[in-house]
Amino acid sequence: MSEALQHLVRLLSLERLEDNLFRGHSENLGWWRVFGGQVLGQALSAAAQTVPVERRAHSLHAYFLRPGDISQPILYEVDRIRDGGSFTTRRVVAIQRGESIFHLDASFQLPEEGFEHALPMAAAPEPLALPTEQERNAGFVERARTLLGERAFVPGPFEVRTGDSDPAQPARRFIWIRATGPLPDDDALHRYLFAYASDYAFAGTALIPHGVTWLTPGVHLASLDHAVWFHRPFRVDDWLLHVVDSPVAAGARALVRGSVFTRDGALVASTAQEALTRFRSTDSAHPPATPGNGVMRAS
Amino acid sequence: MSEALQHLVRLLSLERLEDNLFRGHSENLGWWRVFGGQVLGQALSAAAQTVPVERRAHSLHAYFLRPGDISQPILYEVDRIRDGGSFTTRRVVAIQRGESIFHLDASFQLPEEGFEHALPMAAAPEPLALPTEQERNAGFVERARTLLGERAFVPGPFEVRTGDSDPAQPARRFIWIRATGPLPDDDALHRYLFAYASDYAFAGTALIPHGVTWLTPGVHLASLDHAVWFHRPFRVDDWLLHVVDSPVAAGARALVRGSVFTRDGALVASTAQEALTRFRSTDSAHPPATPGNGVMRAS
Repeated sequence: MSEALQHLVRLLSLERLEDNLFRGHSENLGWWRVFGGQVLGQALSAAAQTVPVERRAHSLHAYFLRPGDISQPILYEVDRIRDGGSFTTRRVVAIQRGESIFHLDASFQLPEEGFEHALPMAAAPEPLALPTEQERNAGFVERARTLLGERAFVPGPFEVRTGDSDPAQPARRFIWIRATGPLPDDDALHRYLFAYASDYAFAGTALIPHGVTWLTPGVHLASLDHAVWFHRPFRVDDWLLHVVDSPVAAGARALVRGSVFTRDGALVASTAQEALTRFRSTDSAHPPATPGNGVMRAS
Repeated sequence: MSEALQHLVRLLSLERLEDNLFRGHSENLGWWRVFGGQVLGQALSAAAQTVPVERRAHSLHAYFLRPGDISQPILYEVDRIRDGGSFTTRRVVAIQRGESIFHLDASFQLPEEGFEHALPMAAAPEPLALPTEQERNAGFVERARTLLGERAFVPGPFEVRTGDSDPAQPARRFIWIRATGPLPDDDALHRYLFAYASDYAFAGTALIPHGVTWLTPGVHLASLDHAVWFHRPFRVDDWLLHVVDSPVAAGARALVRGSVFTRDGALVASTAQEALTRFRSTDSAHPPATPGNGVMRAS
């Protein structure tokens, strides 16, 4: 396991202050704001720690309310909404300086059988046929160094390979992710690590048709919400393909939706996010709001 | 405006007990449980009544926790989570007999401009080329009468025309909806009426590839969550096309996702729902859980 992955696993395991109260610290990505995926992963970890292990997270819905400050711990307060016969529901509020910065609702289910069908995996390039994040971002080195300092070039907990060069489907991106090392057989861990990684390069997919990225001066990209549905068990220490498309952008907001496949083609999760997508051409000094599309995480 | 539509508009307007507290009554659909769309519409109405009118709902995420009882009023308690510069966030908890049966988070935005793109409308049959709900359900008349009594044949507040006969894409359905009469120019009203109607025939789309409906003995279909993203203003008293597909069913749960177009092809909303999709072949007397797919509402 890489040092970055070990560090992330520790960050997402949280410190338990009381039965329903957890404290988490933040990664330093060279950025003063917390990466959205980190708050998602920590909140799902907090929720899962209050649920019997045999009940697995099957969905989460979250809203980002205020930017998180990496210099302060984040408190995660879990509300045990319901413990039912088949389903368990939890709500988690993330708090800094007395204000909620984020909230998440999650539902857990005892494994059960029923009707089955699934879309086939899209034809995608193999992960190793795609450039590394460092190669992709070679043209942005100076801007990245200005924004993020040397942290921009520190290896991250996930290897990420993205491809988005189909002119027929401009608002679509293939995002391969794999944790940088083997992980224990802990089903909940794989789910909250995926929640973390589901935010890589996600909202940025909506910018592709407009020829800009979150690093373009004047572009303001910020996650508004986030949803994940978990369909089947999976591991994040083998390659997962997140196929993301943006059906629509309007009113300074864009929707992205994703399907997540294992390398052998099983559809294991679905995702959705709405993001604020502002462009202020006169405001060239306006910083992007979040490193949420992860382009600065070297892998 | 039809009598059923007038009645629905009254039901969704709610009685305001206090600034953040509302009371709603339920439609009698001949069913002992509350239609999920009604709770969605009432909860969004409650939230909107605590937000300045110039801020429009752009998203909602909801969980269904317990079946609602039509014989009891439903209390809607609004939590004013955040009033920001551009966005307002609300949470609504629906309560019966001291227990939460449902909760919804919604976000509202001051209108703003930004990047724009949208998927084109799918090629769909014209609404009037599709059978009415009464025609579609002619084969189920006896079962409908048994389950719902004469209420099964009372005209509803929306005209609904569905088409789902494409063998190449079995888990897909076209759902045209239109309110049965003209409505006032009240943007919030059109949004919460759409939230109501977004639940028509929605989750049932996931059952098409399996050759069953929610009326098939042994099938148990129940909404677990519901999300709507509103991209642009629209009216529900002109035809809207809800194109729904189910990418996956596994673990006794199915996901459905939809795109909503005006008749002239503008993509105005997106939807998602996960539903419990149980099948108990030995349990022929087990009733379906919800009239959520609306097939019994004659139109």
